[in-house]
Amino acid sequence: MEIIVAKNAGLCYGVKRALKIAQDTRQSRNGNVFCHGELIHNPRVITDLKNQGIQTIKSLGELKEGTVIIRSHGISPKIFQRLKKKNMSIVDATCPNVKKIQKLVERLAKKNEDIIIVGNREHPEIKGLIGHSRGKVKITENVQEAKRSPRRKKRSVLAQSTQDLHLFETIVAALIEKTEELSVHNTICQSVQKRQKSTSELAASVDTLFIIGGRNSSNTNKLYEISKKIQPNTYFIERADQITPRMLKGAKRIGLSGGASTPPEAIREAVLKIKASLSHHIPREIMIQ
Amino acid sequence: MEIIVAKNAGLCYGVKRALKIAQDTRQSRNGNVFCHGELIHNPRVITDLKNQGIQTIKSLGELKEGTVIIRSHGISPKIFQRLKKKNMSIVDATCPNVKKIQKLVERLAKKNEDIIIVGNREHPEIKGLIGHSRGKVKITENVQEAKRSPRRKKRSVLAQSTQDLHLFETIVAALIEKTEELSVHNTICQSVQKRQKSTSELAASVDTLFIIGGRNSSNTNKLYEISKKIQPNTYFIERADQITPRMLKGAKRIGLSGGASTPPEAIREAVLKIKASLSHHIPREIMIQ
Repeated sequence: MEIIVAKNAGLCYGVKRALKIAQDTRQSRNGNVFCHGELIHNPRVITDLKNQGIQTIKSLGELKEGTVIIRSHGISPKIFQRLKKKNMSIVDATCPNVKKIQKLVERLAKKNEDIIIVGNREHPEIKGLIGHSRGKVKITENVQEAKRSPRRKKRSVLAQSTQDLHLFETIVAALIEKTEELSVHNTICQSVQKRQKSTSELAASVDTLFIIGGRNSSNTNKLYEISKKIQPNTYFIERADQITPRMLKGAKRIGLSGGASTPPEAIREAVLKIKASLSHHIPREIMIQ
Repeated sequence: MEIIVAKNAGLCYGVKRALKIAQDTRQSRNGNVFCHGELIHNPRVITDLKNQGIQTIKSLGELKEGTVIIRSHGISPKIFQRLKKKNMSIVDATCPNVKKIQKLVERLAKKNEDIIIVGNREHPEIKGLIGHSRGKVKITENVQEAKRSPRRKKRSVLAQSTQDLHLFETIVAALIEKTEELSVHNTICQSVQKRQKSTSELAASVDTLFIIGGRNSSNTNKLYEISKKIQPNTYFIERADQITPRMLKGAKRIGLSGGASTPPEAIREAVLKIKASLSHHIPREIMIQ
């Protein structure tokens, strides 16, 4: 019996940085501290922040005097201007990788390039990027949409920082058939690429896999989709107490992985829960993390 | 019983043009007329040209006074200079699509770009392109080679004009993982892309398929490889008399396709041969061409 935690599972640099900025801000400032939207996509972390005195707001109307933190996914320049008009003190926790993509999109939009971003229309990072392009980008979510793209002489394509690399490659393949010169900017975060790779390798070597993270986390959902295709016994859980004996029935090699917004405690608790459920065996635990 | 000829099978614009240039040259010029290498990769056509008084030479040493035709695949600037030094009268039958790729390679090499060409090292088009880049390009023949490429911030990739589109897409996918900004120039000739597409569609709808063309024709070989994966009963033939009763045993829907250098007579003769072999049936013939 083995329990194996995927290499590169859990919190990435951008998320750790955003959490540190939020906590430092709370400690150093008096008055209200707000976060515009969820700082990261994990309900457990949001509750922790609330307990520390950082309120997550959904709309700008909820803001009162004080400090507002821009979350890791970034915002559009328009929203930034509205926060300034409200005389809020602004602390920017946008992930540096996302910042780089925002600048790339601005640069390409200024040159009037035909730009496609592979991502989810409803994701805050994408909404921010649309703002940075002044509405000039086209969002493509799947291969079918890419295949319907008109023929172009020149075009640029980039990706949401947490995109599934394989989907990005498939969409690029479809666009090659529609474009004479296609500039492909691989803007998928290196840590996301590594996590997807090590999780899919783990999925191929275990008989049961748990993906731990927030249901609304884009990159955790993608980890689940990638793993499920390789190992059908893949389960998406938000908390350790969602692991049932039925899920563990007959399991001999159990894998665990978590997204960029999954705190290490969540993974540790899942390991403990599995060990407790299998107390009649002596599991050999391998933490590659 | 049906016999179906693939849409877009047979001679492409560049090949038809090269043949016309060669024939016009023979008619308008006195003295020797040579072709530097095979004008197109089809032994039947080369024999026809010889009978018309156009000699195919393998090395520049074979040249005597007269006119030399540059074949559809193009040549390197170095060879061009050597032909000029020999005081040959030069007639250029390089395919306009290949000419465009030669110019693209020159432009990218001048900018000192990191250039990869997806193609066959031994193919004359590729040898010509290496010359136009002044030796600055790297040739990649397969995905394994692409995966071994070093990491780069910026890189350009293009293809031999007769490359298999699917292989090109797979190699691009591998390069995306090694490159921050990858400029993909889809230099595969539109007519090659259409022929590959219609032939693979045909392969999926028939029970037996004949690919007709020269054994040394790159694009015909690719048609065969693509079709063989879809329909195992795919046969590569150079001449109609290579069709045997064993190949036709049990066949109900027979497809035919040919490469860019396959003359229409070769396809017509194959259709006649199949009809004759199946004379006890009355085949319904569909020429989509």
